[in-house]
Amino acid sequence: MPIPALESQAASSLNQTRTGPPVRTLWAERFAQRTQRMGSSVIRELLKYTEKPDVISFAGGLPAPEVFPFAEVERAAETVLREQGKTALQYSPTEGYLPLRELLVRHMARYGIKVTPANVLITTGSQQGLDLIGRLFVNPGDRILTESPTYLGALQAWGAYQADYLTVPIDDEGLDVEKLEAQLRGGPKFLYILPNFQNPAGVTLSLERRRRLVELANHYGAPIVEDDPYGQLRYEGEHLPPLVQIDAEWHGCAKGDCEFTGDVLYLSTLSKTLAPGLRVAWVVAPESVISRLVQMKQGADLHSSTFCQMVAYEVAKDGFLDRHVRTIRELYGQRLKAMLGAFERHFPEGVSWTRPQGGLFLWITLPEGFDSTQLLKEALGQERVAFVPGASFFPRGGGERNCRLNFSYAGPDVIDEGIRRLGTVIERKLVRP
Amino acid sequence: MPIPALESQAASSLNQTRTGPPVRTLWAERFAQRTQRMGSSVIRELLKYTEKPDVISFAGGLPAPEVFPFAEVERAAETVLREQGKTALQYSPTEGYLPLRELLVRHMARYGIKVTPANVLITTGSQQGLDLIGRLFVNPGDRILTESPTYLGALQAWGAYQADYLTVPIDDEGLDVEKLEAQLRGGPKFLYILPNFQNPAGVTLSLERRRRLVELANHYGAPIVEDDPYGQLRYEGEHLPPLVQIDAEWHGCAKGDCEFTGDVLYLSTLSKTLAPGLRVAWVVAPESVISRLVQMKQGADLHSSTFCQMVAYEVAKDGFLDRHVRTIRELYGQRLKAMLGAFERHFPEGVSWTRPQGGLFLWITLPEGFDSTQLLKEALGQERVAFVPGASFFPRGGGERNCRLNFSYAGPDVIDEGIRRLGTVIERKLVRP
Repeated sequence: MPIPALESQAASSLNQTRTGPPVRTLWAERFAQRTQRMGSSVIRELLKYTEKPDVISFAGGLPAPEVFPFAEVERAAETVLREQGKTALQYSPTEGYLPLRELLVRHMARYGIKVTPANVLITTGSQQGLDLIGRLFVNPGDRILTESPTYLGALQAWGAYQADYLTVPIDDEGLDVEKLEAQLRGGPKFLYILPNFQNPAGVTLSLERRRRLVELANHYGAPIVEDDPYGQLRYEGEHLPPLVQIDAEWHGCAKGDCEFTGDVLYLSTLSKTLAPGLRVAWVVAPESVISRLVQMKQGADLHSSTFCQMVAYEVAKDGFLDRHVRTIRELYGQRLKAMLGAFERHFPEGVSWTRPQGGLFLWITLPEGFDSTQLLKEALGQERVAFVPGASFFPRGGGERNCRLNFSYAGPDVIDEGIRRLGTVIERKLVRP
Repeated sequence: MPIPALESQAASSLNQTRTGPPVRTLWAERFAQRTQRMGSSVIRELLKYTEKPDVISFAGGLPAPEVFPFAEVERAAETVLREQGKTALQYSPTEGYLPLRELLVRHMARYGIKVTPANVLITTGSQQGLDLIGRLFVNPGDRILTESPTYLGALQAWGAYQADYLTVPIDDEGLDVEKLEAQLRGGPKFLYILPNFQNPAGVTLSLERRRRLVELANHYGAPIVEDDPYGQLRYEGEHLPPLVQIDAEWHGCAKGDCEFTGDVLYLSTLSKTLAPGLRVAWVVAPESVISRLVQMKQGADLHSSTFCQMVAYEVAKDGFLDRHVRTIRELYGQRLKAMLGAFERHFPEGVSWTRPQGGLFLWITLPEGFDSTQLLKEALGQERVAFVPGASFFPRGGGERNCRLNFSYAGPDVIDEGIRRLGTVIERKLVRP
């Protein structure tokens, strides 16, 4: 059975296909060297069991489908097909649908990112943005500096280009800038940073640290990839300026009037604010980089779905997403509270966790001596509850005592029951380790 | 301005964005070595001019939008959103929407390809299938055996993995199997073959040659990638069995009862029979290869648009595509005839061309001493007409006297006028070279 993506695994029960004995084929063992490095199979195998219907899974990263804007998407599809069907169903430019790129430019300007449509490339999900960046910049053995833990999908994308990693630990305020300089001396090709409600740990990089990070990166001449899928999903606290804006300020622009310096590539997506099933995301980069990324994307998939891009534009064009994001924030904020409350009720002493201000994920640390991959095995076997073990998110080892839990998908009752089950398994291990 | 894909360039007039002075950036000159090999910029630059409204372009590979099934897609989108909206807008399994994979399995069975859904991976256009194959199999310097000329998109995809090429010329019956053996001795990683109405040359590999090709490939232990985007678009002559089926027969299966041997990876797409704007295509491979391709695709874009896959399934599920393909065949067959007639009327002696039985492309050979890249420059400048110069399609040089012309997009009057213009430019050069 094919292996589902960690991010999409909760939807994978669709994927029950008949399997026969393996076929002997001339293709066997002709795999490229790069594919030897895509490992981590134990956790993959375990996560297949999260598809069973009686399992409560906090392993995926799925948005809540009850807030998908069905009626708006249906109206948009109808409008697009009736008014511009010949464009919507046809091949289209690799860089993406221009009105959508213009809309994203207006949208980002309100968050301190001042660019033109020529700085925006539409991608088939943010995952493709990460892949194209790997393809354009990463030679085998190049070192990428990441937070530790970091987004698993980035490691999957860059594994194909045989990247190595320099890592900097995080704490409650995000990447530990005190430990950054030593790693910058290792000569990273670029830094990969998730400043807002980081996947997996849920933490947010503080303003002070953002400034110090940008200063150090400039000092060492290291460019930055800023991955911001969740920036709009803030449930408490104040919006913090993106690294793109802070870099512009560092270069001396007057506050509020920042030109794009091009040092920071910025990625975001409509997957969390509209719908992941459309696969519409974008990369912001200097034009010299965009033109190369466009060449890479031509080789990768020619262009993203014209129809989906035009539907996304039609839904979003009159400010719908701003209103819609308020609904999402409300719901996810409640679910975050529900999960934190369930932790308090059901987890034994010795388990600690992050307190995210937004995003989709919570990160727990198990008591001394625990191994979260082993715990997943027992949680699935004994209590039918799942999460992603922390080790998946560490490019250079670590995370044995951590678990990532998604709080956006399940309703409060399921959250409570799932955390009760997980608490039971942890408790049992504490009593009889 | 970003550079449009050759295949989608006719749609690129959408893409007029403001451009400013280049930004100095830390990203400059950090490009990976692999990107140095993606060249061919002269033709790219020239083809930008095909976007101008007064240019008649035969350069793209666009389906005729007047036969897109607008009403069917609209109905399908409505049905999918109302009945299964939560699935359609959500993340979904990397391998693709199972009912669509099952439908494709039934569809292919009628063309001699007997596989299960576990052998099918949905891709974001066939371009992604080519990319994933490159990612999975190609190490830098690996040699891929191709027809010469061959599909430009494959060269773009595999350039990113630093492939080298072994090439075999083609004639009116497709790849010249007499010249194949010498190249097979060069130890190709795999063979890349477009047996039906090849892009760019329009020629079809004869049955006898299909058999000899499969025999030789097996003898040398070289697997095959069979790329078949146009197989259903046949306007005259008989359907020929795909290489997948011929390989099964070679392995001794009874005719009509062939199990999938797995030696031949097969690619096809809904872009030419339904609509390219949905980006729905597929790869057929042994399960051991599919599971690796799924891993590659997870890193590349997680999955193809759930919505587009479900809409494609909903449109296709009751046999609509079979009826629709008849409409497309009718129209394109007329346009092929129109272009061949225009050649007869407007081209001077010394120009020759292929006579395809299907597909989207015609291939002309100019008189001795002509250079088609130079001709494109003059055709654009003097007469506002465009094609793709042959050199684009030759991995190891050649094609200076060839041009690829698309006959599916423009109506008969535009075809006649465009070919008249092109004939004028050629004539002029013959008189005053």
